[in-house]
Amino acid sequence: MRMAPLITSLQNSRLKLLAKLHDAKHRKREQRVLVDGQREILQALAGGVGIEELWFDPEKIDVDSWLEDVGSASVSSMQLQPATAEVLQRLQYGDRNEGMVAVAKVPRWNWEHLQINAKPLIVVLDGVEKPGNIGAVCRTAVAAGVNAIVLSDCRCEAFNPNAIRSSLGLLFRLPVITASAAEAIERLKDLRVQIYVARVQAAVSPYEANLHDAAAIVMGSEADGLGGPWLDSSLQGLRIPMDERVDSLNVSVSAAILMYEAVRQRTLRR
Amino acid sequence: MRMAPLITSLQNSRLKLLAKLHDAKHRKREQRVLVDGQREILQALAGGVGIEELWFDPEKIDVDSWLEDVGSASVSSMQLQPATAEVLQRLQYGDRNEGMVAVAKVPRWNWEHLQINAKPLIVVLDGVEKPGNIGAVCRTAVAAGVNAIVLSDCRCEAFNPNAIRSSLGLLFRLPVITASAAEAIERLKDLRVQIYVARVQAAVSPYEANLHDAAAIVMGSEADGLGGPWLDSSLQGLRIPMDERVDSLNVSVSAAILMYEAVRQRTLRR
Repeated sequence: MRMAPLITSLQNSRLKLLAKLHDAKHRKREQRVLVDGQREILQALAGGVGIEELWFDPEKIDVDSWLEDVGSASVSSMQLQPATAEVLQRLQYGDRNEGMVAVAKVPRWNWEHLQINAKPLIVVLDGVEKPGNIGAVCRTAVAAGVNAIVLSDCRCEAFNPNAIRSSLGLLFRLPVITASAAEAIERLKDLRVQIYVARVQAAVSPYEANLHDAAAIVMGSEADGLGGPWLDSSLQGLRIPMDERVDSLNVSVSAAILMYEAVRQRTLRR
Repeated sequence: MRMAPLITSLQNSRLKLLAKLHDAKHRKREQRVLVDGQREILQALAGGVGIEELWFDPEKIDVDSWLEDVGSASVSSMQLQPATAEVLQRLQYGDRNEGMVAVAKVPRWNWEHLQINAKPLIVVLDGVEKPGNIGAVCRTAVAAGVNAIVLSDCRCEAFNPNAIRSSLGLLFRLPVITASAAEAIERLKDLRVQIYVARVQAAVSPYEANLHDAAAIVMGSEADGLGGPWLDSSLQGLRIPMDERVDSLNVSVSAAILMYEAVRQRTLRR
């Protein structure tokens, strides 16, 4: 842990470089993301995410006592960078002003990281376009004890600032694996996980499904529904009962209903 | 149904008056709201909402065939107002451009309107500040067959354009009653509805609660939790099980989990 000298100038070269992380292309090239907000940074630290720099406003944050509260071994390698409120503003998102922004390595999860639980519960989001949906689902997934999120044929950035924010940082607390739909199906079958695909046309309700054993719940994007590989008739469909006045539910709501039906089944069978 | 002459001028006095409905104070005074979008207008018509004027862009909408598809008796008293795209733009919200905006009377629901079902399921949202949350909950509530939404000590406008939009117009498909928390408790008790208050500290899980008989599920606002009257120890608490890494769930997600647990119990007992 090194404490760097206070940055007061908007012309600082490091500041200018980091501010480029507001741009998705730059994030992808650098494999780094800005984490804005104390709660989000705490979740990243707790999730073992590599935080390289912690920028903070010393007028607002007593960093020594903050670090003491964190008490994490993972803070040892990071650089502490005090900066004025005006400087910090260049790294923050929107009108948030929590006095703290971290530079984090984008987590890289793969199937080997999937902690093999006897009866894993996995949530697959197919073809997601809005990072906010990933974040909202992750928040509920951590609450429900889901073992991993799989993003199949994802059309957006998983560790996008909007995903981090809508998850309240909980995106950093579970494995988030990206894969093609075909690969995801193959891997899930290898793991002997029963795949349940949420479909309006399916005949089976979640209450009739076996979600207490190893299971993956697959949700399509709101705009286009599920991608081709998930429509394979060998996969089990699952239909959330809905009044005929309603065409569909929000993806985060559908995912929550199915995840918590699994929680219910697993609570009762424990 | 009267067809008015095409409006092409941004100086049109009726247009100027209606554009004021973008302002909450004006909506409150006039008890009118602009409903933007075909899907939302269809839901309002299906829900029996009084639509007084239907503004549309004749370049975009074949209004005769649209009305034929609607086939509702409720369209008979409304005025059809063709207008240019530029004129219509003044009534639309954000960058939506569906070529159709309606002027609707704000629905007025009260306890007497509550269709008395033998075993009603009622959702109470206490102290809501964000209209988007009302809309998101209403969308799921209609899907789950909820009989009414009660907004207790609501700190925002129920029929706000953001609520209409986030509900996809489904806000118009069920009774939405506003009341003080004290009045809501009294009325629910009169209706012999078992009140379940969602609280992180409660001992009972939704799976142990009786949600198949007459029940009201009460949710606090995300920022401040529940208002005083709902904390009365005589009311039954309900706790959604959550991993310790998570403090709370999004209100729309919590409501969905509880509403669908009621759906499950009611499906099995039918």
